[in-house]
Amino acid sequence: MVISVDAMGGDRGPSAVVAGMAQSAAKNPEIRFIVHGNRDELSRLIARRKALAGRCDIHHAEGVVTMEDKPSQIVRKGSDTSMWSAIESVRTGDAQAAVSCGNTGALMAMSMLRLRKLPGVNRPAIACLWPSVNPQGFNIMLDVGADIRADAHDLLQYALMGTSYARNGLELSRPRIGLLNVGTEEHKGRAELKQANDLIAAAAESGQFEYVGFVEGGDLPSSRADVIVTDGFTGNIALKTGEGTAKLVGAFLKDAFANSIMSKFAALLAMTSLKRLQKRIDPRRVNGGIFLGLNGTVIKSHGSADATGVSAAIKLAFTLAKSDFQNRLAARVAQGAASVDQGESREAAT
Amino acid sequence: MVISVDAMGGDRGPSAVVAGMAQSAAKNPEIRFIVHGNRDELSRLIARRKALAGRCDIHHAEGVVTMEDKPSQIVRKGSDTSMWSAIESVRTGDAQAAVSCGNTGALMAMSMLRLRKLPGVNRPAIACLWPSVNPQGFNIMLDVGADIRADAHDLLQYALMGTSYARNGLELSRPRIGLLNVGTEEHKGRAELKQANDLIAAAAESGQFEYVGFVEGGDLPSSRADVIVTDGFTGNIALKTGEGTAKLVGAFLKDAFANSIMSKFAALLAMTSLKRLQKRIDPRRVNGGIFLGLNGTVIKSHGSADATGVSAAIKLAFTLAKSDFQNRLAARVAQGAASVDQGESREAAT
Repeated sequence: MVISVDAMGGDRGPSAVVAGMAQSAAKNPEIRFIVHGNRDELSRLIARRKALAGRCDIHHAEGVVTMEDKPSQIVRKGSDTSMWSAIESVRTGDAQAAVSCGNTGALMAMSMLRLRKLPGVNRPAIACLWPSVNPQGFNIMLDVGADIRADAHDLLQYALMGTSYARNGLELSRPRIGLLNVGTEEHKGRAELKQANDLIAAAAESGQFEYVGFVEGGDLPSSRADVIVTDGFTGNIALKTGEGTAKLVGAFLKDAFANSIMSKFAALLAMTSLKRLQKRIDPRRVNGGIFLGLNGTVIKSHGSADATGVSAAIKLAFTLAKSDFQNRLAARVAQGAASVDQGESREAAT
Repeated sequence: MVISVDAMGGDRGPSAVVAGMAQSAAKNPEIRFIVHGNRDELSRLIARRKALAGRCDIHHAEGVVTMEDKPSQIVRKGSDTSMWSAIESVRTGDAQAAVSCGNTGALMAMSMLRLRKLPGVNRPAIACLWPSVNPQGFNIMLDVGADIRADAHDLLQYALMGTSYARNGLELSRPRIGLLNVGTEEHKGRAELKQANDLIAAAAESGQFEYVGFVEGGDLPSSRADVIVTDGFTGNIALKTGEGTAKLVGAFLKDAFANSIMSKFAALLAMTSLKRLQKRIDPRRVNGGIFLGLNGTVIKSHGSADATGVSAAIKLAFTLAKSDFQNRLAARVAQGAASVDQGESREAAT
């Protein structure tokens, strides 16, 4: 298993990325890396890590995509960058998946350009993991920002891709799919949601998922569904709102315990419990948005990811690569597209 | 000051509503009530509360709007209900504001029908308070679900109405307005958002607010803005996502402390701190979505509100009534509509 890693462009620079690679390598003897970025710097950083000895190929890249770069410029002039090079290793088949902490918009635009969309996919999507009370500990939400628009057919594709991701990434044999709306009654919401509701319900049997219908914002961390489907505008707002709320509660918690000597003492005693809590809501442990709907697997890690965050993203890339996720996803999408086409020709015929 | 209270239709029945009224009455000698619902039941409940003696008029209503009732049916056949009657007291001017824990959709439809939209308002909005790190402790978000659509002019109206609410409800003399989007760069988001961005920026000076531009989901509880403007679909998803996340973190926290004898002991010691935290994130204390853009002030309390929740909603109604909010809001909206019209005629003239 070879994972292609863009070592540049994250907020903490290549040292955090290499540290994350070392964590993954120490835990997982099967993993190898192609690392993209400045050769001298990377050689130095990798030489310091025993776990990485003999397990990394370095591909030199002069350029770095910054967080400020516009996606449109990058796709025209970015071919000398580490991000481009990291995607290239997936395109050629040298690596089974790519991981980058860089600029999301640029990574998506470049991945679209170089890997191209899977046949049958109109809009690719970014899927993220969301801490939940479900037994698997996470729900999947998509799209969280690949595209600000999605019509009913796109939402159906998201349901199929989300199913595939849940099966291969979270080992759920028959995932439950929900469609995000402002209420659970069938008459609620925008026209494209009502249409998507019918399309997804009709695809449930052949797609081997369970469709639970409309779900609300409060269900994102609930046990009502395993996969929540929405357009990239709404999904992005929901994702950032959830992150912001968790951060706020964390800050309030810290304030509450810092308030007096007595409560500081209590916090000290409570440390184990608080650490257990932190581990459950730690965004670093669910790090890794995945791009779905392309000819190749690309994982977007948080820009501010530290070694633990990068390692979580690499672990996700490895799990998916090992389950032959890419081919399974392609098959599922092709099948879904065919069944919609058939449905439409049947409709046209009657 | 007279507040009109719909005592029926909440999940906990009229006893919770009357208990909330008693809490408010005990704290606030200026407040009086018109209470709507079953006369016999309400007379009994009110007689038991000393604080309410001689301060309530009861308006008998036979019917109750349930959570399952469709708004469209209610506006046709609901004239015998306590909800209708509660709105009627605002329409006639007998009360300065109405409070109800009932069905949101029905309350909005009925309020629209009986109170009518303010001149210059195309879509009324529901505004909610959101716990934040700002000095005032809360941010305002609107629309959180009055309408699933909003065009650029509606979003401008929301900015003006939110400004008025922030000034009279939160005592912010020059509120900072942000427009919710998937990124802060000007080129991001849907077409109507770019247009609204220009309209709101142009209205800032005459509207006496500060416009901070696009904000993201993570800014809802942040100090970047005091008022966050969005369409009702996105706002509803964000509101419920935030509530769901806070609930999840609360459940995790409980789990974390329940894990061992030692942590139970720590939790006991930490109780004061945890209670302080709970008070800050307690949704009952920010209870009360307000309908903006009608000829009258209507406050929607959570369906599951208990006495504390109802009392918080009544307090908000009282604060707004006392500041002559309704007339100030009307003036602001009229002024905003005029300035947009002028802008458009200037544009048409050039």
